[in-house]
Amino acid sequence: MAALQFNLQTTDTLSKARAGVITTDHGTIETPIFMPVGTVGTVKAVTQQQLKQEVNAQIILGNTYHLYLRPGLKILEAAGGLHQFNGWDRPILTDSGGYQVFSLANNRKIKEEGVVFQSHIDGSKHLFTPENVMDTQRIIGGDIIMAFDECPPYPSDFKYAKNSMELTHRWLDRCINHFNNTTDKYGYTQNLFPIVQGSTYKDLRTESAYYIASKNATGNAIGGLSVGEPTEVMYEYTALCCDILPEQKPRYLMGVGTPWNILENIALGVDMFDCVMPTRNGRNAMLFTSKGIINIDNKKWENDFSVIDDGIDCPMSNYYSKSYLRHLMKAKEYLGLTIASVHNLAFYLWLVKQARAQILAGTFTSWKNEMVVRLQTKL
Amino acid sequence: MAALQFNLQTTDTLSKARAGVITTDHGTIETPIFMPVGTVGTVKAVTQQQLKQEVNAQIILGNTYHLYLRPGLKILEAAGGLHQFNGWDRPILTDSGGYQVFSLANNRKIKEEGVVFQSHIDGSKHLFTPENVMDTQRIIGGDIIMAFDECPPYPSDFKYAKNSMELTHRWLDRCINHFNNTTDKYGYTQNLFPIVQGSTYKDLRTESAYYIASKNATGNAIGGLSVGEPTEVMYEYTALCCDILPEQKPRYLMGVGTPWNILENIALGVDMFDCVMPTRNGRNAMLFTSKGIINIDNKKWENDFSVIDDGIDCPMSNYYSKSYLRHLMKAKEYLGLTIASVHNLAFYLWLVKQARAQILAGTFTSWKNEMVVRLQTKL
Repeated sequence: MAALQFNLQTTDTLSKARAGVITTDHGTIETPIFMPVGTVGTVKAVTQQQLKQEVNAQIILGNTYHLYLRPGLKILEAAGGLHQFNGWDRPILTDSGGYQVFSLANNRKIKEEGVVFQSHIDGSKHLFTPENVMDTQRIIGGDIIMAFDECPPYPSDFKYAKNSMELTHRWLDRCINHFNNTTDKYGYTQNLFPIVQGSTYKDLRTESAYYIASKNATGNAIGGLSVGEPTEVMYEYTALCCDILPEQKPRYLMGVGTPWNILENIALGVDMFDCVMPTRNGRNAMLFTSKGIINIDNKKWENDFSVIDDGIDCPMSNYYSKSYLRHLMKAKEYLGLTIASVHNLAFYLWLVKQARAQILAGTFTSWKNEMVVRLQTKL
Repeated sequence: MAALQFNLQTTDTLSKARAGVITTDHGTIETPIFMPVGTVGTVKAVTQQQLKQEVNAQIILGNTYHLYLRPGLKILEAAGGLHQFNGWDRPILTDSGGYQVFSLANNRKIKEEGVVFQSHIDGSKHLFTPENVMDTQRIIGGDIIMAFDECPPYPSDFKYAKNSMELTHRWLDRCINHFNNTTDKYGYTQNLFPIVQGSTYKDLRTESAYYIASKNATGNAIGGLSVGEPTEVMYEYTALCCDILPEQKPRYLMGVGTPWNILENIALGVDMFDCVMPTRNGRNAMLFTSKGIINIDNKKWENDFSVIDDGIDCPMSNYYSKSYLRHLMKAKEYLGLTIASVHNLAFYLWLVKQARAQILAGTFTSWKNEMVVRLQTKL
């Protein structure tokens, strides 16, 4: 089996958008790509069958923090890793757990060694270090695993941001060292992606991007954005990072975002995205469609028997009506959560597939400019 | 389009079990059959696609009380009936709403005219009469609709049971009269099934069964059982009713039951069943399998990576492991509810399909006696 490869096919002439193909031991991923988030080993309310047949997901995420606590490493290892455990046989990316641990706010303490935190489930104390987070992700068995980083809040003052970035860099070196001294557990290759930090300071971001680029990883990530900063600031720092990170490696912008955020970041040179938005917002009655945004709780959909979205290629989005989905959501039926989640994810996957086709056809920028307006329309 | 037909294919020689085929304008149903309950227009946590591809459901139920309140008749009529509304294009049976209304206990009042009750959603007052319940079921559009009856509690004293049965019979005549004076709304034929009542009194049950049989309906139902009486009493009264109800019409035992209840009642001559048990118990971690009962919350399944049930033909039951399903249930993930519900329903449909094959092969009784023991085994 072989390390992750990235075949860059085309770069747009009017923007920095790229189309490529990532190859992993669990199959290929056509970029740009959106990765559904499977927090606790499941994309919430969606079956693995639906992820393939309805959503066309090519890769999904697992969250190290959640999986470490439940079902725990013993079970995941006995199962033969997350792919075997949940029956998802395409690529998986796991985060490092850092982001979740820092979100615990008062229940965690950052030290040079790592982070001590309390479980949100039973209050038990745990320590995450760069080394044991590599071990944990080895056991979970993601095809792509992430370095243990600190994601500073927005805004952070310069001193905090600088110290945090330097800690992230030291942790990265420990991650790489430990990763290189350990081996793949299940017969396929795991790949470590480092993460650019540096908050919203140009010199820190620049320094961090160069530092990450120097590690010559098979792919690189941009963290610490989409954490509350204005959208224009996010775009500014994504652009800065993309211009420094190596062209021949995939670039992953973590935790982004709305459909229009994704299109704008594709234009800046990002290849990979993940976000809980399609599933979380779906469960709260917000639908993203090819024609704009729908609040399906709104009374205007009560008698609208047209299908959810005939503009995309998802069978379920072309099967169930807006009126039926509204009824299910009002009646708090589980099926409503499933249909809304499947639809929103299918829409995200449809969107990046269209973006890729437009890049390959050389028509991305004009299409993107039109879509960014259309997708934000409130229907 | 044509009224419901029942083609009785075989009757077992050692029991009264029958195999037949029901034909409706939405397709055929092979009996004996189990009908998943789709309370508010959805079988809880299961998609219509899963009902076809995983469960092999041939007919589902809708609950008149729930559908009348939400989404309401205006929307159902505008949609063109429940089939159009929820996208289920195979047969649908609707109950009369009687059972739910009587379950409201203190929030309803029974009169000769009908029942006044308060909505469990907003406390609003409503009146169900035999006539308007026919109108409501005409609008919902079930292929099979049920007479408006009173289901007396168990135990009921003789006087209450007799009065209740007589009221049910008077209501039945009003139902039939109104049904015959109204027409199918959506271009396919609806069929009215009357319901035997009479609590657990032999003379009342006998009188009611003869009364119902005399109406020459396309099918007949047995109500008022599985409401708390001992299992042997249920079997005794099912047998009594089956022996009186016409042989050439399908017999529907309402609200039953466990897998072994279903097998024993098939042996007594019942053709159709419905129950919330597979979905409700599934959501509470209880799995019915071809090898016995599993409480998937039990720690013994934590490291059991075998599939949920390799003894049945459901793809999902043969895909996900017990360990994974246990994890999902412990983590309170929606996917756990879906997998457990799909599995349990698929098991019920598998069971009645096996029963049918055994009846046709002339081997039903010995198979049934073995299965009744095996299915109750606690694994």
